Amino acid sequence: MSFNIVLIEPEIPNNTGNIGRLALATGSTLHLVKPFGFELTDKRLKRAGLDYWQHLNVIMYENVDAFFKEHDDKKMIFFSATATKNHWEIDFEDNMFLVFGKESVGLSKPILEENADKAVKIPLYSEHIRSLNLANAVAISIYEGLRQLN
Amino acid sequence: MSFNIVLIEPEIPNNTGNIGRLALATGSTLHLVKPFGFELTDKRLKRAGLDYWQHLNVIMYENVDAFFKEHDDKKMIFFSATATKNHWEIDFEDNMFLVFGKESVGLSKPILEENADKAVKIPLYSEHIRSLNLANAVAISIYEGLRQLN
Repeated sequence: MSFNIVLIEPEIPNNTGNIGRLALATGSTLHLVKPFGFELTDKRLKRAGLDYWQHLNVIMYENVDAFFKEHDDKKMIFFSATATKNHWEIDFEDNMFLVFGKESVGLSKPILEENADKAVKIPLYSEHIRSLNLANAVAISIYEGLRQLN
Repeated sequence: MSFNIVLIEPEIPNNTGNIGRLALATGSTLHLVKPFGFELTDKRLKRAGLDYWQHLNVIMYENVDAFFKEHDDKKMIFFSATATKNHWEIDFEDNMFLVFGKESVGLSKPILEENADKAVKIPLYSEHIRSLNLANAVAISIYEGLRQLN
């Protein structure tokens, strides 16, 4: 049982580092789609990932098109604050791809429009908060998936 | 419906900032038990909390004893990597206190021994990972509680 975590154009090295740690902890594969907002040699990436990076199953893609071309037959869900369905209302499946956009603006409009039926949100209970930290969002959703499949 | 997030002697300002954002997003109260590993004026605290700090319901305690003295009648669960029960196996309750130790070593031995029947862990699936990032652990558990109570 495992999942695929997809970060499209991540911007903040600490988040990607933390998500690497999460991917390893949960037996997930991490897919990173360029361009990134940091260098892969960034110390903050390693520090947040606690030097476990070498054990991680990570795949890089030159751009969004390359990622979708390679995985057009895969079962995916797309995380967006504008979605109507909560993440805990969907049925997670083994090998599912959990796709997250960049920290500043989330997934692009074309990606969300093309996958509107597969969009989910993590519910928020405050008018002051527009979104969660990216690593926290990944953590919440991947553990809901693990809970369901266990 | 709401929860209480308790951080005992947190060390890393970004984590506490992120957890503040999580507390606000989930309508939770944040309890911070001193000593902290940072100043409350630390810019990293505010940056990770995205300046939402002023809207947050946060309570500070001078030390562990002061916290437990004030809340000895509350329903609590204690997070520890050494616990045997998974977090998704327990029944969350409204107003429950979710108690987390410091990043470097977790909850102290006396606290864990006194509350062994209320200890839970977040399951990890890799021998290379001993624990999750503290903010991620809080995110996973608080959203499991919200899911159950919804």
